[in-house]
Amino acid sequence: MKTRIGIAGYGNLGRGVECAVRETSDMELTAVFTRRDPSSLKIQTENVPVVSMDDILEWKDRIDVLVLCGGSATDLPVQTPELAKNFNVIDSFDTHANIPVHFAAVDEAAKANGNTAMISVGWDPGMFSLIRAYSSAVLPNGKDYTFWGKGVSQGHSDAIRRIEGVANAKQYTVPVEAALEAVRNGENPELTTRQKHTRECFVVLKEGADPEKVRKEIVEMPNYFADYDTTVNFISAEEFAANHSGLAHGGFVFRSGCTGFNHEHSHVIEFSLKLDSNPEFTSSVIIAYARAIKRLNDKGDTGCKTVFDIPPVLLSEMTPEEMRARLL
Amino acid sequence: MKTRIGIAGYGNLGRGVECAVRETSDMELTAVFTRRDPSSLKIQTENVPVVSMDDILEWKDRIDVLVLCGGSATDLPVQTPELAKNFNVIDSFDTHANIPVHFAAVDEAAKANGNTAMISVGWDPGMFSLIRAYSSAVLPNGKDYTFWGKGVSQGHSDAIRRIEGVANAKQYTVPVEAALEAVRNGENPELTTRQKHTRECFVVLKEGADPEKVRKEIVEMPNYFADYDTTVNFISAEEFAANHSGLAHGGFVFRSGCTGFNHEHSHVIEFSLKLDSNPEFTSSVIIAYARAIKRLNDKGDTGCKTVFDIPPVLLSEMTPEEMRARLL
Repeated sequence: MKTRIGIAGYGNLGRGVECAVRETSDMELTAVFTRRDPSSLKIQTENVPVVSMDDILEWKDRIDVLVLCGGSATDLPVQTPELAKNFNVIDSFDTHANIPVHFAAVDEAAKANGNTAMISVGWDPGMFSLIRAYSSAVLPNGKDYTFWGKGVSQGHSDAIRRIEGVANAKQYTVPVEAALEAVRNGENPELTTRQKHTRECFVVLKEGADPEKVRKEIVEMPNYFADYDTTVNFISAEEFAANHSGLAHGGFVFRSGCTGFNHEHSHVIEFSLKLDSNPEFTSSVIIAYARAIKRLNDKGDTGCKTVFDIPPVLLSEMTPEEMRARLL
Repeated sequence: MKTRIGIAGYGNLGRGVECAVRETSDMELTAVFTRRDPSSLKIQTENVPVVSMDDILEWKDRIDVLVLCGGSATDLPVQTPELAKNFNVIDSFDTHANIPVHFAAVDEAAKANGNTAMISVGWDPGMFSLIRAYSSAVLPNGKDYTFWGKGVSQGHSDAIRRIEGVANAKQYTVPVEAALEAVRNGENPELTTRQKHTRECFVVLKEGADPEKVRKEIVEMPNYFADYDTTVNFISAEEFAANHSGLAHGGFVFRSGCTGFNHEHSHVIEFSLKLDSNPEFTSSVIIAYARAIKRLNDKGDTGCKTVFDIPPVLLSEMTPEEMRARLL
């Protein structure tokens, strides 16, 4: 029997999960849950019901793993622990500083009800976290570097859009090539915020807005832009639609460290992602881990998990024998 | 109490394990076992006994994990299953084609005696295998590429040294830059053996040997060189000692794949290693997994494992809480 997947929340991430399920032969999409009027929602797959979130508990015994596709700011801190009482759940909670609190709430709800939950699945947190864990264990005497981009930062784009006079905006985070090269060469540089990333903004102004005033407000914005070299480009709505509607992203994780009786040998581990679609790749990671969550719950292993708790063998459609023969 | 590590076999790998243990705060080197006369062996650490392999069973209850540092061709196929009867063991068996047979033999011996064993730990097999497993699970609709080098191939160097007239030789495997770039750009190329790697040989001739004859014998050698573009450089013993005594290695693993309802988005995952010392890095991976083997055995989880079976949380000296707070 196929693993029955439910999607809670049908934005970019929910649509990505819908696509990712299609790439498997052991899972099927059972229902999509939405806070909108279900009749207003057109999903891509045929013959899959769209259900109001108000009725989700009626699906308690018809869903094996529920994928939560809400936002980290306000949706998931409430939804994940609440739904973990009745479902095996998985989310992509990405507010790094709040992970311990979120983990504790989800773990308690899941354990108390015999469910298996997983938080913070995606590429960062997610695959980047895995690389940081493996490489720090392998090279304990070393240094980590994470770079993001080139890609769209939703938070920074939103911050620009809140400025008076801005009609639309997109912000790209760009790693500084010289910093990447220094790390790649094992130079172990100490890098300031400004030396690691630049910020490129593409802004559509409202009629009559003062570009110089908007530019100043962006580049001086504390936390978001003040510590970076920021360039602001004013463009037309047409150019924005044509060239800046994608959701590409990516990044790099490095660990550089030494071995040897006198630390005489150095090593560089590099992992990078170049993604055409951030939400679709994130969804693909989530669906691989949804497979693991089902398998863990079948064994009675309940509570909240992260990528650190899951052996790779649980992620694959291959048998352990096939994996050893083909991938080891 | 610290995890007590034993080393069986004191070549480059054994010396690397000795160094790697020093980088941990939760392990200690308890003994080194050798087939040589123990009194002839000078190890780097003070106050650690060197013991004859003949007496290894006397150490059965004084070693938590025994690291087997013999070769894959003849040592490990015999040693690992034999020693798994009396110890938790870990090896770096790297004859890919024979892994299933080796696994079965080790699994049976370990399970029958309540021990935990692990085979094929290092970087390939090992970390490269992990990347292949994670990325094929995440991008099921995709294609894998593994490139090795630039680095020393021990097998190819040995093959050259067996040729009449050769005093010494080192062979470097070099990935073809254009092939790397095509894969990195998501072009999904079909690559022949010749298009992926070149082979660079540095050869010291014996007095009176015919260089042209040796060169021909190398480049036409079936399996080892005939399918590659091979360059042969004849150098002096002095130049060999000065420039070709290192053990650097490395390589690249890629997965390139598509997502989206119509596979309209493509993604490239890239992992690479640049290693000053192949045996010391391999040893560092082994020691991280030795920690996991001890933890699994303490829980009563016995039998043979590979990197696919081990959750990352078992590799780290950090607690799960620390890992979630610092690495996720």
